[in-house]
Amino acid sequence: MIPRYSRPEMVAIWSPETRFRIWFEIEAHACDAMADLGVIPRANAEAVWKARDAQFDTARIDEIEAVTKHDVIAFLTHLGEIVGVDEARFVHQGMTSSDVLDTAFNIQLTRAADLLLADIDALLAALKRRALEHKDTVCVGRSHGIHAEPVTFGLKMAQAHAEFDRARARLVAARAEIATGAISGAVGTFANIDPAVEAHVCAALGLSPEPVSTQVIPRDRHAMFFATLAVIASSIERLATEVRHLQRTEVLEAEEYFSPGQKGSSAMPHKRNPVLTENLTGLARMVRSMALPAMENVALWHERDISHSSVERMIGPDATVTLDFALARLTGVIDKLVVYPERMRANLDRLGGLVHSQRVLLALTQAGLSREDAYATVQRAAMKTWEEGRDFQTELAADARVTGALGADGLAALFDLGHHTRHVDTIFARVFGA
Amino acid sequence: MIPRYSRPEMVAIWSPETRFRIWFEIEAHACDAMADLGVIPRANAEAVWKARDAQFDTARIDEIEAVTKHDVIAFLTHLGEIVGVDEARFVHQGMTSSDVLDTAFNIQLTRAADLLLADIDALLAALKRRALEHKDTVCVGRSHGIHAEPVTFGLKMAQAHAEFDRARARLVAARAEIATGAISGAVGTFANIDPAVEAHVCAALGLSPEPVSTQVIPRDRHAMFFATLAVIASSIERLATEVRHLQRTEVLEAEEYFSPGQKGSSAMPHKRNPVLTENLTGLARMVRSMALPAMENVALWHERDISHSSVERMIGPDATVTLDFALARLTGVIDKLVVYPERMRANLDRLGGLVHSQRVLLALTQAGLSREDAYATVQRAAMKTWEEGRDFQTELAADARVTGALGADGLAALFDLGHHTRHVDTIFARVFGA
Amino acid sequence: MIPRYSRPEMVAIWSPETRFRIWFEIEAHACDAMADLGVIPRANAEAVWKARDAQFDTARIDEIEAVTKHDVIAFLTHLGEIVGVDEARFVHQGMTSSDVLDTAFNIQLTRAADLLLADIDALLAALKRRALEHKDTVCVGRSHGIHAEPVTFGLKMAQAHAEFDRARARLVAARAEIATGAISGAVGTFANIDPAVEAHVCAALGLSPEPVSTQVIPRDRHAMFFATLAVIASSIERLATEVRHLQRTEVLEAEEYFSPGQKGSSAMPHKRNPVLTENLTGLARMVRSMALPAMENVALWHERDISHSSVERMIGPDATVTLDFALARLTGVIDKLVVYPERMRANLDRLGGLVHSQRVLLALTQAGLSREDAYATVQRAAMKTWEEGRDFQTELAADARVTGALGADGLAALFDLGHHTRHVDTIFARVFGA
Amino acid sequence: MIPRYSRPEMVAIWSPETRFRIWFEIEAHACDAMADLGVIPRANAEAVWKARDAQFDTARIDEIEAVTKHDVIAFLTHLGEIVGVDEARFVHQGMTSSDVLDTAFNIQLTRAADLLLADIDALLAALKRRALEHKDTVCVGRSHGIHAEPVTFGLKMAQAHAEFDRARARLVAARAEIATGAISGAVGTFANIDPAVEAHVCAALGLSPEPVSTQVIPRDRHAMFFATLAVIASSIERLATEVRHLQRTEVLEAEEYFSPGQKGSSAMPHKRNPVLTENLTGLARMVRSMALPAMENVALWHERDISHSSVERMIGPDATVTLDFALARLTGVIDKLVVYPERMRANLDRLGGLVHSQRVLLALTQAGLSREDAYATVQRAAMKTWEEGRDFQTELAADARVTGALGADGLAALFDLGHHTRHVDTIFARVFGA
Repeated sequence: MIPRYSRPEMVAIWSPETRFRIWFEIEAHACDAMADLGVIPRANAEAVWKARDAQFDTARIDEIEAVTKHDVIAFLTHLGEIVGVDEARFVHQGMTSSDVLDTAFNIQLTRAADLLLADIDALLAALKRRALEHKDTVCVGRSHGIHAEPVTFGLKMAQAHAEFDRARARLVAARAEIATGAISGAVGTFANIDPAVEAHVCAALGLSPEPVSTQVIPRDRHAMFFATLAVIASSIERLATEVRHLQRTEVLEAEEYFSPGQKGSSAMPHKRNPVLTENLTGLARMVRSMALPAMENVALWHERDISHSSVERMIGPDATVTLDFALARLTGVIDKLVVYPERMRANLDRLGGLVHSQRVLLALTQAGLSREDAYATVQRAAMKTWEEGRDFQTELAADARVTGALGADGLAALFDLGHHTRHVDTIFARVFGA
Repeated sequence: MIPRYSRPEMVAIWSPETRFRIWFEIEAHACDAMADLGVIPRANAEAVWKARDAQFDTARIDEIEAVTKHDVIAFLTHLGEIVGVDEARFVHQGMTSSDVLDTAFNIQLTRAADLLLADIDALLAALKRRALEHKDTVCVGRSHGIHAEPVTFGLKMAQAHAEFDRARARLVAARAEIATGAISGAVGTFANIDPAVEAHVCAALGLSPEPVSTQVIPRDRHAMFFATLAVIASSIERLATEVRHLQRTEVLEAEEYFSPGQKGSSAMPHKRNPVLTENLTGLARMVRSMALPAMENVALWHERDISHSSVERMIGPDATVTLDFALARLTGVIDKLVVYPERMRANLDRLGGLVHSQRVLLALTQAGLSREDAYATVQRAAMKTWEEGRDFQTELAADARVTGALGADGLAALFDLGHHTRHVDTIFARVFGA
Repeated sequence: MIPRYSRPEMVAIWSPETRFRIWFEIEAHACDAMADLGVIPRANAEAVWKARDAQFDTARIDEIEAVTKHDVIAFLTHLGEIVGVDEARFVHQGMTSSDVLDTAFNIQLTRAADLLLADIDALLAALKRRALEHKDTVCVGRSHGIHAEPVTFGLKMAQAHAEFDRARARLVAARAEIATGAISGAVGTFANIDPAVEAHVCAALGLSPEPVSTQVIPRDRHAMFFATLAVIASSIERLATEVRHLQRTEVLEAEEYFSPGQKGSSAMPHKRNPVLTENLTGLARMVRSMALPAMENVALWHERDISHSSVERMIGPDATVTLDFALARLTGVIDKLVVYPERMRANLDRLGGLVHSQRVLLALTQAGLSREDAYATVQRAAMKTWEEGRDFQTELAADARVTGALGADGLAALFDLGHHTRHVDTIFARVFGA
Repeated sequence: MIPRYSRPEMVAIWSPETRFRIWFEIEAHACDAMADLGVIPRANAEAVWKARDAQFDTARIDEIEAVTKHDVIAFLTHLGEIVGVDEARFVHQGMTSSDVLDTAFNIQLTRAADLLLADIDALLAALKRRALEHKDTVCVGRSHGIHAEPVTFGLKMAQAHAEFDRARARLVAARAEIATGAISGAVGTFANIDPAVEAHVCAALGLSPEPVSTQVIPRDRHAMFFATLAVIASSIERLATEVRHLQRTEVLEAEEYFSPGQKGSSAMPHKRNPVLTENLTGLARMVRSMALPAMENVALWHERDISHSSVERMIGPDATVTLDFALARLTGVIDKLVVYPERMRANLDRLGGLVHSQRVLLALTQAGLSREDAYATVQRAAMKTWEEGRDFQTELAADARVTGALGADGLAALFDLGHHTRHVDTIFARVFGA
């Protein structure tokens, strides 16, 4: 998490202030539940809420932690300073630190997921707008980097929309994975705390109770969460790579928006580089890498060990902040992407019509040539077109077998671009609804 | 995928025979659909089904591929040899190789997922049986490898059950991710094939049509699939690690079943090593590692490049075969695990009752001591117990502040194990239903 | 390790036959050393060598292992069947299975490293040949995929040569990492075997004795070995990516060799796809991923656990076989790469001379303009050239500030390509020697 | 890089101040070299050094970058503000931003490597001290977590010393990998800058010139650097895991130092948890994960793309700061580790002498029993000892075949611990010298 690649709202989720605020809410709600059960006096539960509007003093808590070497105890001590040591004496009763830490971490992750969902929604909106705008903007489709057959730029956007729609569904599932809380005590047996406390706290904070916690909430949930972020990052990389390719000097079918004051290079003033999408490619690598330690965190020893903690202090903020930034940056790129339809058309025409070869091949087969003969015929004309820079239709027209089979008009009809785009509406209906 | 860690049913999914069989079905169903549409003669579509019971000659197909360097063309040529070149001339019309390859790969993955789901079900059954068997078998809960408070061995099994229940749900979702097919032609525009063909083939084979394919089915789906396997592998590692810990010489609360003829070590005949769960730990590392190339496969260039293919030829079989083997091995381990309740009880008593310290602490607080005072009191007795091998209850009983606050009987009551297990039924109800 | 991506020599290193042969040599040399020490009778040591030319019966060994569940004991039993049970009775005395297994594994890895070194040498030779061939073949250098300034194709090859020279040095170091053996007994204390045996076996087999083995040879060595392969794979990916880019339809400055019978696509006969380098990209992902489990193998429990074993049974063959195949394939690609100098020149000229902008900028600064003014002047002409498809030199010549500062001849001289290639010899001398 | 896991000296390497200071030095030395070559006036080169003691204004540079969106240009503009715009006009002449950025990054990495080397030296010193201190402190060696044969605690430390000695050698090699600089211009051709400038700058800053840079220094170097850190982190994990195991309640052969004020748990005052080594386990996972994006950074497009940059802005600081902290923490753990020799001895004796089984087995074989018979004899006694808690020596003494073969005294002699430690000096000499 570095400022350059961070946005304030997501950063705020990971601030000490937010963390202590969440800890407080967990403790206060737990006191309410214990008062309901008659385990602690109602007055003490109510007293804790005096800190509702208090500002927790991060420096003071750090100071206490320097002695106790225990963050939750440090916080509770500070809370006692605010609420009154005597009033606060029942706070955290029967609980263990992880009840607070794990429940709070999951709240932070669900809030992060909510921001990420909003990010994806914004990206989807941009993709949809550009898809509709360029539904019929024909460009060449490429497999292996080699011209294949015509597609439209709108289809590229629609594909990305479908992919990020899946990303959204995955993130919703991932959010559900980590939307649990646990207030179950030292080894998860509720030995000194009633399960009703857990139920109350979770309900108050929008979580489900963890079915079996063992001091900690099991880390397979978090592994799944971060793995999901990693897959989403990989989709970001895909779309970023597409833009980078389209912006190559020789292709130049689209370009990242280039603001007036911006300098592409200290040495080559003409350069307009796809630096945003290159940046996204790198950020995707980072988010992806963070799935690994999250997975290695699953196999904690017995009821718990704390090896996951240092990992999560890093990847909790880093993965969510970086992905939030990346999604927002990608949305900006798509939103403002400069598209060059003429260049798309020029590139499409570059191979002398070879992109229609498959259609000719099919027509010849249907007109009675064997598949092998048709293939050889088309390949011969195609090779000549490519190697000598000829026009494919002309080459084919010069072959008596072709004109014999298809007729001149029949051949010409095969070079109609509309043929390739006639199912675009069908595909769009699949993605955006009818 | 090596024989040592493979089971035949999963291996069979990845055999050339299975692959060619699936390819055949895709092509034959596509012909049916094209005949329905009147695009090809019904007779030709019917002729293709002559190969329904044929054995495809893998060696012959390899031979053709050695010349054409293209596997699908090699297969189609061989299919022509079976069906008749003329009858087969409309096979694959308007399709591209990836229509066959990607759809077939997804069918293999869904079948693999079905086997894995059955594996998980078997594991869940074993876990449930052992959980119920040992619901009340008390053992010490450990955090950081250090004794904490009592749990039961059944709770450990219930936790694992809850975790693999989540694994199951994730795998169901992952299966849905890759249960799509595409018959959309060279760049996914249906330029030379009607979308109805795709719909027919997918319906016949239990798949959904891919909303936007671009010659290939987008690889974010597969990334999610393999990431899910990686998370499941991590859960295997967790349970395997638990067994390894429990089997340590000093702990020995449970042991992998050791068959009569088995030799633990060529040098130390007394050794009974947790080799199965150690093996599972290694296998988990392997399955986990395969999520990475699957994620790197997402960012294909433009409409497709073929860099994903070599990766999938490896991880398709390797990840599913290894995970299938690992799940089955783990089920065997759990099923036959030798559990030592007496040893569990002996270990629990080892610390002179210190595992009850939290309860004493709470009782003192509730009896009126300040949290800090109670903590100091308990810590003093605890330290003495630990360092000098004393009995915790005796130490506490010797402290007038304690007996003054709790009374001798009150103190004794705090050392009741039943206190720790009274919510086990609640937890079991969460996992296994009421 | 799948046949499609395997070469026989490397595969042979990992065959059961090779493994048993190496095990035999370790045991036989150990017997010699023990006879030298007078620990076992000379006759028994000599008897073992009767198996020197024997064929070990893999099926028989598997059969025995099915009962004993221990591979080394199974082998030793079979060895007894060959040599005579009585003669073989001192074989393996004082040793532990890992003495054989780990030493043998390292021998396999060193042999694999030797093949890989030969692979790299072949690649280096191909790169050097193509570098010298195209030392002066000018093409555009690209940063961010955007035209920058002229380079030569030979420089690209020289860069790759320098990179694989580093790969070679790293592999030499990695080979040294795993060229150790251990014959140190159950926990590495030489309790029942003299260190002289280890010294003898290692000397006979080209290894160094492991300074401190603990039954096993420490796995940080193997982690470093596989991490090194992963880095080499990443360099393969870089060069493969370069070829893929150069072969793009719009760039087409180079092309993988396309054999006469080869079909690029079942649908588009004109297509010549960079399938080899795409394949290499995928293979690189696989080799890279295998570094991870190798690293996770380091933290074995206490003196050893066997979790590393299943990982190594997979990545030992898989990483070396795949990398061997990939290096050989890459060598073939480079060796036969079809290079198009005219197309390189055409692409270079495509931007109307903008690739010379930096030189003009510098000249203006040196002629007295402030850096900011010079930058603005050049940028203005550059933008016009780019956006309106003009000629950069003409645009600049029309600017009085430019001609005033440089003169017409002075300006023209800045567009000399030779300027950019005058240090190529210097760079080549760095890479290939003077 | 979070404060909790950071040490100031390493953090300082990555501060903006340090970075700008290094940039300045590169530019100033380059000016010197250009003045030597007569390319720029000597006075201008000298003027630049006016900034030698200046404080660069980070906020001001950020402000400029906000407009130019280019960090090096922003810095150069600010440098002009310090030195004088006119005096600074030749600064950076013929150079490209990456000349500064890449050279500076490598300087930061070499400095980081130097700190890490010092960290390892400190760790080695601690390990050596503890190794010598406990050279003869006998404890049980464990394979698979199961008691095997005696080792000494000193041997454990010696093993770790040997491992970190290798880590040191690897780090020295990794440092050499990234100790290169490049001042070669826009695409590495020295088009507008003499190679002598590069030579001068590199010599002044302790680097070697990069043989072939292509605007950027090739990233295989950095991949190797971070992969090396990842392997070192894995060795940290191994030693940390050893401590965690030794501190388990049931084992308790060693313990992290527990400071007086420290509270192990808010709930269980008796707990002393191995939190430092658990923390190190997590930190190791993080450093390990960062090798991946570093490897993915290798395959930059053509002469360069900037996707590596965001990755390096994160892992440059994060990996080095975290590893520095982890090494220092580990040194502290080892240095202050509380070792319990009596407990080691008690654990060793726990299995009734079974740890001597291998020796007995050997002695029986040497006394004439067949290997199979000896094995069966020992296994029988061993199983009884283990299952019924008997004494192994007594069980063996009751077997006439054993006493017949070895005699009572002969049998007793096999239970001498000294036998297992007699080669410790040999092993120590390998690690620490004679």
